[in-house]
Amino acid sequence: MGEKQRVLILGGGFGGLHAARALKRVPVDVTLLDRRNFYLFQPLLYQVATGSLSPGEIAAPLRGILSRQKNVRVLLGEAADIDPVAKRVLLKDGATLEYDSLIVATGSQSHYFGNEQWREWATSLKSVEEATAIRHKILYAFEAAEREPDPTLRAAWLTFVIVGAGATGVELAGALAEIARRTLRNDFRSIRPEEARILLLDGASRVLPALPADLAAKAERSLIRLGARARNGVKVTCIDSEGVTFHAGQSTERIAAKTVLWAGGVAASELGCVLAARTNAQTDRGGRIRVNPDLTVPGFPDIYVVGDLALAFRSGGRPLPGVAPVAMQQGYYAAQSIAARLDGSAQPRPFHYFDRGDLAVIGRASAVANLFGLHVWGFPAWLLWLFVHLMYLVEFRSRLLVFIQWGFQYLTFSRGARLITGVVDTAPPKTKTADRG
Amino acid sequence: MGEKQRVLILGGGFGGLHAARALKRVPVDVTLLDRRNFYLFQPLLYQVATGSLSPGEIAAPLRGILSRQKNVRVLLGEAADIDPVAKRVLLKDGATLEYDSLIVATGSQSHYFGNEQWREWATSLKSVEEATAIRHKILYAFEAAEREPDPTLRAAWLTFVIVGAGATGVELAGALAEIARRTLRNDFRSIRPEEARILLLDGASRVLPALPADLAAKAERSLIRLGARARNGVKVTCIDSEGVTFHAGQSTERIAAKTVLWAGGVAASELGCVLAARTNAQTDRGGRIRVNPDLTVPGFPDIYVVGDLALAFRSGGRPLPGVAPVAMQQGYYAAQSIAARLDGSAQPRPFHYFDRGDLAVIGRASAVANLFGLHVWGFPAWLLWLFVHLMYLVEFRSRLLVFIQWGFQYLTFSRGARLITGVVDTAPPKTKTADRG
Repeated sequence: MGEKQRVLILGGGFGGLHAARALKRVPVDVTLLDRRNFYLFQPLLYQVATGSLSPGEIAAPLRGILSRQKNVRVLLGEAADIDPVAKRVLLKDGATLEYDSLIVATGSQSHYFGNEQWREWATSLKSVEEATAIRHKILYAFEAAEREPDPTLRAAWLTFVIVGAGATGVELAGALAEIARRTLRNDFRSIRPEEARILLLDGASRVLPALPADLAAKAERSLIRLGARARNGVKVTCIDSEGVTFHAGQSTERIAAKTVLWAGGVAASELGCVLAARTNAQTDRGGRIRVNPDLTVPGFPDIYVVGDLALAFRSGGRPLPGVAPVAMQQGYYAAQSIAARLDGSAQPRPFHYFDRGDLAVIGRASAVANLFGLHVWGFPAWLLWLFVHLMYLVEFRSRLLVFIQWGFQYLTFSRGARLITGVVDTAPPKTKTADRG
Repeated sequence: MGEKQRVLILGGGFGGLHAARALKRVPVDVTLLDRRNFYLFQPLLYQVATGSLSPGEIAAPLRGILSRQKNVRVLLGEAADIDPVAKRVLLKDGATLEYDSLIVATGSQSHYFGNEQWREWATSLKSVEEATAIRHKILYAFEAAEREPDPTLRAAWLTFVIVGAGATGVELAGALAEIARRTLRNDFRSIRPEEARILLLDGASRVLPALPADLAAKAERSLIRLGARARNGVKVTCIDSEGVTFHAGQSTERIAAKTVLWAGGVAASELGCVLAARTNAQTDRGGRIRVNPDLTVPGFPDIYVVGDLALAFRSGGRPLPGVAPVAMQQGYYAAQSIAARLDGSAQPRPFHYFDRGDLAVIGRASAVANLFGLHVWGFPAWLLWLFVHLMYLVEFRSRLLVFIQWGFQYLTFSRGARLITGVVDTAPPKTKTADRG
């Protein structure tokens, strides 16, 4: 190493990891910094939260993935500040990293729209720790119901509210319904798990706003068939230990529920605020940084922002969604752009998102997909979902293991990773999780 | 249910679960109480601690295992007190359970020989949480070494001390040596993981005191070949955040080590003290309860103690070891005894442990086994170990998944579950775990 250009990548998620890999044959020294030592396949995190998969099956150590790519150095650490003039990043432990090109890919964190106190009662699903906390909450609720003699309290233990009816919310609701109606069917003696109420709340007029209306309607019908119910056009006003209060039309309703999950919203990661302040970049309400068409920060051609943290636009003018394919393509683009600068060739054309479509899975053999504008649903959509997700799992072994787990679950409805861990004993789980975005 | 005899089983480990299953065709109402909702295959816990397996792969939900056995009711909860005269068990949450027959199978907890303050620095390996904490410590140590410029501190990060050279200690040492020398070989840029020092300390004169001397010597040679070293006949006097101090012969030595693991000793679970106090039963130094030859508590023919908590003896007079086969056979025996009483048939003869022998695995394709007095080592012993452990994994799916993980690891030396989770970010992990035995 030594004289080569230094590329520093902050964040080892979809955007950062794909940027690092795309720099494989480029003569640069790459440093990939992440707070965690592993790459997490976020789209399957809800399966950890609902006991289908173990964390180890949807995560792979970053060092392992990159061990053969000798121009990459992986560091465990967290960026605290950026000096875009001196081209330096300060880490939380006081160390400093210098760069010639910087790729910021620190993603998003869950956001409670100014009601940060809800975090205590409504766990979000962004980290492995939150996923196992949700798993704990769900499984513990059935255990508590089994032991609860008071029918009102018992009903509250068996009521599950999910706030947010995007893909994550729909996937959680579908999986929860399957747990109650199939997986736990014979496991209890005092309660009937299939009597659990599963409620999906959202402010929008329908579930899955990112998908076409006909597919969203199909998804909602599938949810109802599974026993979950969606309430659209509602505004949540309070979440506490005993339940959820919300406005629906003119009336205010209260639902007694011991388990509330948050799939409501995300905002830019903390580092985004720092970057915006240091570069005077514009942001949207969620703190995403408005980037140039080539994904650089205005005025700083050596700083790229990719993934959930970037506010970039489709050719039509609509902002790009915070999904994995966007992050991967942006990471790849940033790497290409750096390589082109280095060998003096022409810069690539402005970033263009190649949109293959959207997918959401509702349950066993049930999904909806918008594939290049083609609307697919039911079993074919589910097969498509299966195929896409298995292909993208990085490590071959994970792929095989996940495939076996799913195959087994498909045939038997059982779930392999139904462990209540992390909180001692029989105390009802609070969920002040350690996630900081 | 209703008029039938009530059998209450405290603890869903090897002893308790096997007792419950053996009562399948007996006309009794069984209640199985456990603090956790899952059965844990303890002998493979070191593989979770060393990143080979995920917790979900060595655990199965108790409800799932017993869902078809309709005379069993599983309860999540923890016993606080026992009233052997009124035949009642009080739970920590205030509830009461009545019984006609009681099987106490609450096992053992790690024990620091009066140095409870060591627990903070030397994590033991009894629970899933401790296993993932150890995994965190080990992986974090390599990460910290990679970033440490000071060679002395770097060496301390790369020094791993395991206190206790029984089966767990030897298995941890072997796995750690393989991690350093094979798994992480190409993963770092500043350090050479194979320079890690792995040290096994024990007060006894050799490793694996439970096994014959020739096999122990073979195991020690295998460890040395892998790069670990055993120091026997030493007495640990201090463990703190920076290392371990111990007496060896006349001298006192100090080893700077950031990672210390405890495989040192176990004592009876907390409930054992309560039971001993309420029944005036005799205990040994570790708090194990001396039982009658039929595993009942003297003076209380309806209370059985099985597994690690029971102090029972071989025909020769030596106490039985705290291993899974003893617990399983005792659980089965207690169930048989209750069944015999119920239908008025002859009581079974005093409990006799059918000893198939002992096994310890050192690493890939390396183990030692004493099988019915036949000494086996190397690859054949390893195959034996593999076979025995796969057969005893309760759920078919776990068996298959573990087999695949192991097969993959055998071929590639990689480890699938190398996640640093549970503690935020880059702070060095303290390990005040939540385990209470």
